[in-house]
Amino acid sequence: MEDDPTLRLRVFDLNCWAIRYLSKRRQERVRLIGDMLQQEGFDLVLLQEVWSEQDYSDLKVKLGGYYPFSHYFRSGVIGSGLCVFSRFPILDTLLYQYSLNGYPYMLQHGDWFCGKSVGLQVSMWKSASLLLGSHQLHAEYCREKDAYLPHRLVQAWELAQFIRHTSKAADVVLLGGDLNMHPEDVGIRLLRGWTGLRDAFAEATHFEVSSRGGAGSQGTPRASHQPRHLSQGCEDGCTLVPNNCFTDKSELLPFPLGIRIDYILYKAISSFMVKCEELKTTTGAVPGMDVPFSDHEAVMATLHIQRQGEAASATLSTAGPMLADVVMEARTEVGVGLRVAQQQRYSSGRMAILALLLLLLQAAAALGALAGLDAGQPFPKLSFCLLAFLAIGILLLATGLYLFHTMEVKMLHGTEEQMRMVLQVLQERP
Amino acid sequence: MEDDPTLRLRVFDLNCWAIRYLSKRRQERVRLIGDMLQQEGFDLVLLQEVWSEQDYSDLKVKLGGYYPFSHYFRSGVIGSGLCVFSRFPILDTLLYQYSLNGYPYMLQHGDWFCGKSVGLQVSMWKSASLLLGSHQLHAEYCREKDAYLPHRLVQAWELAQFIRHTSKAADVVLLGGDLNMHPEDVGIRLLRGWTGLRDAFAEATHFEVSSRGGAGSQGTPRASHQPRHLSQGCEDGCTLVPNNCFTDKSELLPFPLGIRIDYILYKAISSFMVKCEELKTTTGAVPGMDVPFSDHEAVMATLHIQRQGEAASATLSTAGPMLADVVMEARTEVGVGLRVAQQQRYSSGRMAILALLLLLLQAAAALGALAGLDAGQPFPKLSFCLLAFLAIGILLLATGLYLFHTMEVKMLHGTEEQMRMVLQVLQERP
Repeated sequence: MEDDPTLRLRVFDLNCWAIRYLSKRRQERVRLIGDMLQQEGFDLVLLQEVWSEQDYSDLKVKLGGYYPFSHYFRSGVIGSGLCVFSRFPILDTLLYQYSLNGYPYMLQHGDWFCGKSVGLQVSMWKSASLLLGSHQLHAEYCREKDAYLPHRLVQAWELAQFIRHTSKAADVVLLGGDLNMHPEDVGIRLLRGWTGLRDAFAEATHFEVSSRGGAGSQGTPRASHQPRHLSQGCEDGCTLVPNNCFTDKSELLPFPLGIRIDYILYKAISSFMVKCEELKTTTGAVPGMDVPFSDHEAVMATLHIQRQGEAASATLSTAGPMLADVVMEARTEVGVGLRVAQQQRYSSGRMAILALLLLLLQAAAALGALAGLDAGQPFPKLSFCLLAFLAIGILLLATGLYLFHTMEVKMLHGTEEQMRMVLQVLQERP
Repeated sequence: MEDDPTLRLRVFDLNCWAIRYLSKRRQERVRLIGDMLQQEGFDLVLLQEVWSEQDYSDLKVKLGGYYPFSHYFRSGVIGSGLCVFSRFPILDTLLYQYSLNGYPYMLQHGDWFCGKSVGLQVSMWKSASLLLGSHQLHAEYCREKDAYLPHRLVQAWELAQFIRHTSKAADVVLLGGDLNMHPEDVGIRLLRGWTGLRDAFAEATHFEVSSRGGAGSQGTPRASHQPRHLSQGCEDGCTLVPNNCFTDKSELLPFPLGIRIDYILYKAISSFMVKCEELKTTTGAVPGMDVPFSDHEAVMATLHIQRQGEAASATLSTAGPMLADVVMEARTEVGVGLRVAQQQRYSSGRMAILALLLLLLQAAAALGALAGLDAGQPFPKLSFCLLAFLAIGILLLATGLYLFHTMEVKMLHGTEEQMRMVLQVLQERP
């Protein structure tokens, strides 16, 4: 890098769906992923949903020869599931936990327990430093009635703020992961607009739809002159496709081609220029096997990094008015979430008070009975006892919910406030 | 600043102890703080433990004329209690929540509910940018048997990492707050060593002990030529002193002069030089009143910031071997905490399994009774029911504890790992 001012960087990103006991054919798939990474020899590998530390350790042993540096991020009850393998030294790591990440009582969704977070790594090859993030935002369980949208927006905002504040001394910023957002969603527009990150898929010079990947083999014009093996992928760069045997077909019904929710994003900070030369995705089953690597498709980008004399121009300032619109839109959604959270806080507070009143009433009745003030038939002891336990249970639960929703209200309010401040700055700018 | 290469920056820091319903004479004290801030006219004011948003709003209205910019950080159930008033525009804010912050079941300590966090603000006056942090680490409740030490060390480490990663593009970094650590504690040595921050008290050119602040009016040599009103403070710069009517005298018994746990720390990043010209603390009761501003003393520093041609030298590299010792010490403490957390996780897991077994046993007995397999005297229904509820209660509680301690183990383990990585880098350095 010191002598040669250019570098080709091959980046691999995959949501591995490796949940112990729950993910189908997990061990087989992790082994296949390891084999492929060993053969392909990428420069940087970002993996999500590697929930078992054992799987990480196995991969580490297997890949140690080609990727001497790696890191596994620990957080939450289960872990973050994030790990990185690198050909370049990892100099430092930082964990950022989102302030909102779903609800602990939505056990079936489980996001709360995973402690989703941003892993930051600073790698360096000779004189250029790279800020690298691998991460996963809160999943979307129902697109039509998406209760988690405000949480995901808060996460997108915090992620964008985190990148803005930590990336200033880097030469190149790279972010890969399962963002759980469609390309046109407000969250992704917010993240891209506020950080200036570019979408490798949208910027790729070469991308060709594989014959296996979608409705047919329609090469996009920008890729028509490329040999097939170099630049194949699912149509529209989708990473959740009907072609994959593990995806939920009913979820993908409104999207016959699939959806794109896994991304590689990048930008150059200082006197560097980054271009995406090529983008590929996997296309369902591993060639020659009946199983894909994961329920998501992997995203693979080849970036061309070039040192140049002058500092890169800020992409942010040009997009001022458009950015203000996106922030405004996001703020409206966060505001909606805030009102819902306030309503839920109110409901759980009322429930707690009712349970408390019931308990007090029972205590008074019991005291009355003890003092011999019984009028008429006594209440059956067993039912009385059951009722008291029920009241205690509801009181505890409702208090817990009240505290949780209070925290949610604070965070949504805080984010709304931050967005308001940014809007003011954006609108004051000429 | 553009024309004049020097700037005198007056910084005020105070833990306000303004907890609604709990803090004594809160409203009166907040009013006094507001009056004093208005009169004194600092450049930057960092306040902690302003738990009531109403108090913040009142202060904002009162101080709006002199401090046109302010921000209140919202987080946790109660809030973060952190707010900042500034004469300079606040351009951006970022909230970093520590991954560990005490135990939710230690209600009497309450740290868990407060969502302690780092508030980052980027102010700018003409061409120089300032990174400003105001924050509070987990309180120390018992120095001899400090169960929270590992949590506080994880926080100190995360804070240091946060500062390192976010400060690279700033000109000056300023950190003020109640760190809940004595100057010689491993946490503060870790924070200072790993970030290169300097302690305003230790660096101050002028500091003189007030006649009211300690055992007597012994001016330190470095201040003997200074007029008294300019440079007064409690002996050793203590911020929890026996002289303050709100401090717990029994806690301060081993420290007759008091303890110093509130700090103003600073460093210059790029081509700036920062010196602490003068440091002051309040000394118990407000002059002419019978009440102090808070149970903590305020710290006031006058910093002299000068632009210079060459970039400031890194203070980090010189302290390599010493820093390695500190990181090693901290890692040992975190390791101790890790083993305690693992033990607690094991205990709560065992408890949960026992409760589950009891429930299963009861279910089997109940089924047996229903099927008419009763041998001998039946178990009284009420006791049977009470026992079942008890078992359910213990099961829920123990499961909650298990999840919590699992999270704690993950975070302590992750921090230990990070420290190990840093140690490796430090030791490899010549």
